[in-house]
Amino acid sequence: MTVARIGIYGLGTMGSALALNMAEHGIDVAISNREVPRINAFMDASGDLSKRLHPHETLAGFVAGLEVPRLVLFMIPSGDAMDEMITRIAPLLDHGDMIIDAGNADFHATRRRAADLARQKLHFVGMGVSGGEQGARHGPSMMVGGSDHSWQQLAPVLSSIAARFRGDPCVALLGPDGAGHFVKTVHNGIEYADMQLIAELHSLLRYGMAWTPPEVADLFTVWNDGPLQSYLVGITANILRASDPDTGHPMIDVIKDSAGQKGTGRWTVIEALCLGQSATMIEAAVAARSWSSEKDTRQTAETVLGGARLGVSLSAETLADAFLAARILAHAQGFRLLSEASDHYDWQLDLARIAEIWRAGCIIRSALLDDIAAAFHDTPKHGELILAPVIAERLGHAIPALRETVAAAVHAGHAVPALSAALAWYDSMRQGFGTANIIQAQRDVFGRHGFQRLGQSGVHHGPWWD
Amino acid sequence: MTVARIGIYGLGTMGSALALNMAEHGIDVAISNREVPRINAFMDASGDLSKRLHPHETLAGFVAGLEVPRLVLFMIPSGDAMDEMITRIAPLLDHGDMIIDAGNADFHATRRRAADLARQKLHFVGMGVSGGEQGARHGPSMMVGGSDHSWQQLAPVLSSIAARFRGDPCVALLGPDGAGHFVKTVHNGIEYADMQLIAELHSLLRYGMAWTPPEVADLFTVWNDGPLQSYLVGITANILRASDPDTGHPMIDVIKDSAGQKGTGRWTVIEALCLGQSATMIEAAVAARSWSSEKDTRQTAETVLGGARLGVSLSAETLADAFLAARILAHAQGFRLLSEASDHYDWQLDLARIAEIWRAGCIIRSALLDDIAAAFHDTPKHGELILAPVIAERLGHAIPALRETVAAAVHAGHAVPALSAALAWYDSMRQGFGTANIIQAQRDVFGRHGFQRLGQSGVHHGPWWD
Repeated sequence: MTVARIGIYGLGTMGSALALNMAEHGIDVAISNREVPRINAFMDASGDLSKRLHPHETLAGFVAGLEVPRLVLFMIPSGDAMDEMITRIAPLLDHGDMIIDAGNADFHATRRRAADLARQKLHFVGMGVSGGEQGARHGPSMMVGGSDHSWQQLAPVLSSIAARFRGDPCVALLGPDGAGHFVKTVHNGIEYADMQLIAELHSLLRYGMAWTPPEVADLFTVWNDGPLQSYLVGITANILRASDPDTGHPMIDVIKDSAGQKGTGRWTVIEALCLGQSATMIEAAVAARSWSSEKDTRQTAETVLGGARLGVSLSAETLADAFLAARILAHAQGFRLLSEASDHYDWQLDLARIAEIWRAGCIIRSALLDDIAAAFHDTPKHGELILAPVIAERLGHAIPALRETVAAAVHAGHAVPALSAALAWYDSMRQGFGTANIIQAQRDVFGRHGFQRLGQSGVHHGPWWD
Repeated sequence: MTVARIGIYGLGTMGSALALNMAEHGIDVAISNREVPRINAFMDASGDLSKRLHPHETLAGFVAGLEVPRLVLFMIPSGDAMDEMITRIAPLLDHGDMIIDAGNADFHATRRRAADLARQKLHFVGMGVSGGEQGARHGPSMMVGGSDHSWQQLAPVLSSIAARFRGDPCVALLGPDGAGHFVKTVHNGIEYADMQLIAELHSLLRYGMAWTPPEVADLFTVWNDGPLQSYLVGITANILRASDPDTGHPMIDVIKDSAGQKGTGRWTVIEALCLGQSATMIEAAVAARSWSSEKDTRQTAETVLGGARLGVSLSAETLADAFLAARILAHAQGFRLLSEASDHYDWQLDLARIAEIWRAGCIIRSALLDDIAAAFHDTPKHGELILAPVIAERLGHAIPALRETVAAAVHAGHAVPALSAALAWYDSMRQGFGTANIIQAQRDVFGRHGFQRLGQSGVHHGPWWD
């Protein structure tokens, strides 16, 4: 009997794809799944790769089929299911074995599980895997949280299956315990913002400028060959060219305008708030999805309030620059949050390396990320991406287009929450003297909270106001 | 020895003011405080009212000095301090006595404490008190969460000290356990948004239109005599007329533009997210305060990115209508959140009554709240304030001014996160067919999440995209 290098438990879309990817790279993989029939169906569909796949119907057999120290990767729903599987499998493992949670877990739970398992002398790795089914099958980006010891054991397997950017595998140990899952959460938050930006720009083109879906698709194809190149731009072009086989209409026009969400965007926003920050573009994207799900209310509101969207006159170049500016700002908010969490949890995250492993394999992969990696290698002032010279220069060029786009949309009644949030943050941050003196004065008047004087230390108090 | 009707523990700004308010209404109040010297200082400063105030240096004496069943009101920092005091005082109380937490507590903690104390046959009331020091002293708005039994005991005391709006005391039992503290939290969230709107409008007037502080003050005074009348508008006029005795400059120009926050705004936003909602105007206000505290970064950014704010040409009437529209939308977001929480926790909140008790005493008291109360008595469609006829009509009139204001600000580089967020939400909600079809299509392409077709039930899946 072949002893497998790694075990994968959970043969859903992502687990199956990872197993096939490993098999294709010559790695023997033990596989198992809660529903046993799924195991056989997966083996049957695996073709030649099945010779590297070793199915087990029982957890005991699955564990027994692994090289020691064992690497056991779970790709199952996060939450209680993960805790339950840990409880079941831990007694079957030996000191020094490793459990990897490759799902989208809440990083707080990952921290807890890592601490619990360490007491049982088991290693626990929280790993974010991005790229969807195709990424998992042919090369994902993987964000690893765990010990150096765990990384040394895992690195050979993960490096062989990872996406590569100019030869560099898109996988790294980012920090201990929850670091990998946290970085994946923020990745998804940036993904929410980028998708929302694309939705807003598509809407302006379709309903503000009367472009057809194929025309918008052609523009996205052009964008996908320049500084706006990205996986999401590419698939959006494909989406806009697709026709509905049933009706012949553009596919996009038969898809209901109600977006789901599984929680990572919301987690990102909540964690930002808990850290005293605000990722307002991600907030806007999460909000837009919530509102999109309230279709009945929106239809009533259109009747009561009027739903007119007027024409806008914007060039494709203006929209491109607006998109670039807003995309930079969304990433900047995400990296601020990574930096803050790194300080708070003492993870010592390498922001440049994170940008590097996002350059291929993951959903937000884009030309911009290579520039961001370079910018972080230069260590921008205050750690702020927007203050890195090359990024600041690009913003300086692109921001006027963002202003023009938001102003036109706002005038014409198009909803642009993420584009607006981008500009509101940019304009807030670049004002050395802002607007909050009024707020601090009000707080002192009604709540005796005190205030600071410009250029002086210490807290001053009223009454000074009447 | 006089037996007191109620005891107040915690003689900080708010606790002292409540005690004096009660004494002035002929209520005998037992008082105590962690630091004993504060008790004597407070008695000394209480003048004639001291005859109704009965000081106790020990917790046992404080409890013994109360009518049975006892009403013990704590006005102390929320969190661990409250739990510690409960642990200390509960053994001194008898079945049927009541503990009231009148601070800004996390309503989850209030729910937990109410359940714990119920097992000890003690009543627990979570009560939000708004109005700052002056409100607490001369008439606050009070939001009570607890049992009907508790309310019957408390109502006579609270009704006598509450602010009154046309004779109606601004206090009510809003629901069980955490309902009062939750409503207070949302009140504060709306307060954050309203303060931020005022800060943004002030900034446009000062730096976009070159008005002097006294000129802005005069405009706010005019506003305070019409549909924009509110406590915050009134105090802002006073603030803008004040001069710094040290330098002779307008006071507002020597106050540092870094606003503090104590957490209720952030709680509101997080709770909204946990309930699947987004209170984006409150988010914007919380974010703006966070960014305001990063003064060093902003000063660097001004150097790197340029901080120019150009002139804007807007009439006072346009700004007034923009403010009105945005203020309505901020309240609408707050009431949506109350409605959602009411469903989730089965509180059966009376939204009209909440608006009524906010009409006087509290920080967000305004002419608008009387209209909002009336609108909720009419039960708007989907429970949405923006769909109530009278509110929808006012929005229809005022929204064009909000568009003009945001567009002008955005063009000229003024940061208007809350005004922008208002419009983004309004435009999102009034579009029966929105922009999220793109997002749902993308999710199906990369994650196989499926989508719904317009006008059909059921979930459809690709591949349909290439």
